[in-house]
Amino acid sequence: MPRQGRKDDVLAAAIALFSRKGYHGTTVRDIADEAGMLSGSLYAHYSSKEEMLFDIVQQAAGQFISGIGPMLESDQPAADKLRAAMRSHLRVMALSRDAAAIYLHEWKALTGDRRTIIAEKRNAYEEGLAAIIRQGVEAGEFRPVDAKFARLLVLSALNWLYQWYDPAGALGPDAVADKFADLVLHGLTNGEEGASS
Amino acid sequence: MPRQGRKDDVLAAAIALFSRKGYHGTTVRDIADEAGMLSGSLYAHYSSKEEMLFDIVQQAAGQFISGIGPMLESDQPAADKLRAAMRSHLRVMALSRDAAAIYLHEWKALTGDRRTIIAEKRNAYEEGLAAIIRQGVEAGEFRPVDAKFARLLVLSALNWLYQWYDPAGALGPDAVADKFADLVLHGLTNGEEGASS
Repeated sequence: MPRQGRKDDVLAAAIALFSRKGYHGTTVRDIADEAGMLSGSLYAHYSSKEEMLFDIVQQAAGQFISGIGPMLESDQPAADKLRAAMRSHLRVMALSRDAAAIYLHEWKALTGDRRTIIAEKRNAYEEGLAAIIRQGVEAGEFRPVDAKFARLLVLSALNWLYQWYDPAGALGPDAVADKFADLVLHGLTNGEEGASS
Repeated sequence: MPRQGRKDDVLAAAIALFSRKGYHGTTVRDIADEAGMLSGSLYAHYSSKEEMLFDIVQQAAGQFISGIGPMLESDQPAADKLRAAMRSHLRVMALSRDAAAIYLHEWKALTGDRRTIIAEKRNAYEEGLAAIIRQGVEAGEFRPVDAKFARLLVLSALNWLYQWYDPAGALGPDAVADKFADLVLHGLTNGEEGASS
């Protein structure tokens, strides 16, 4: 089996175990067992468990960030850009559900430079979503909402997905994103009581 | 030291460890060490690690459910009830942050009857929030939104709180709940493009 293939096996095993048992609840031995190799062979690919975590989280961060790049440079209405960003986010989560859960919940186990690098990527992504919302406010398309809270509302709804989303269910990621986008853009009320902010 | 005090010590130690290392990443020995007692003494209070998890999750579920009880029976406008329910949820999360995180993320480690009991409590709570939203739709106060997705939007935003909320920050739980309630009720748009659902 080619060397690259074995490294992918290690990563797939680490993703499955970190997602199921948590980073701290998983040992290198567990990962070697899951990948069907000896711990010694595993160290040919990764020098530490943390290096595996970094690889997983960095790949996920790259998927999220590259997904919203086109929206940041587009001159579409902010509502359309936000909807497209939400679709992109859910596609990454639906396609790489376990890796996305690790990106969301286990990244804080990283230390030193690795943690700094990922924190910067996470901030850049969150800032990109907030920028779309601020553009909408500045263009008068959105109400003068707090972009930080609006971004938190959007991201938290999307990130919660892994708790309940059934990839085999009736709704694909785009349909789910559209449902949430409609709620976030238009709210619950009929508008009869007027916006309070 | 009174027996009840020691049991509380065990529970506090379990909450701290399950929240920090995850349920599967924590051993009974870890909990005994954290509580400053021998494993044998710990078994005088709890027969298993799972029994501790059940106690933590059941207490948290009780706090969430009792918080929205008054809103379900009230005849206020649905928007006011939803806002009050969101405040109640965030108060529980702010006051019992670690226990709430365990309720959200570790409850699936429960098995058998314990898991069934907690699943029913979680469903009852989620159903209560959905009922408030459906009441708003039926009264014509809310748009004809999908109550399940609206409930998911609300709960996911609130549940994500533990990832970023700083109890020492400028905004208390009620202020944060109001920010989210305003966004959920009124949405981002100025309403110029019209509601799309």
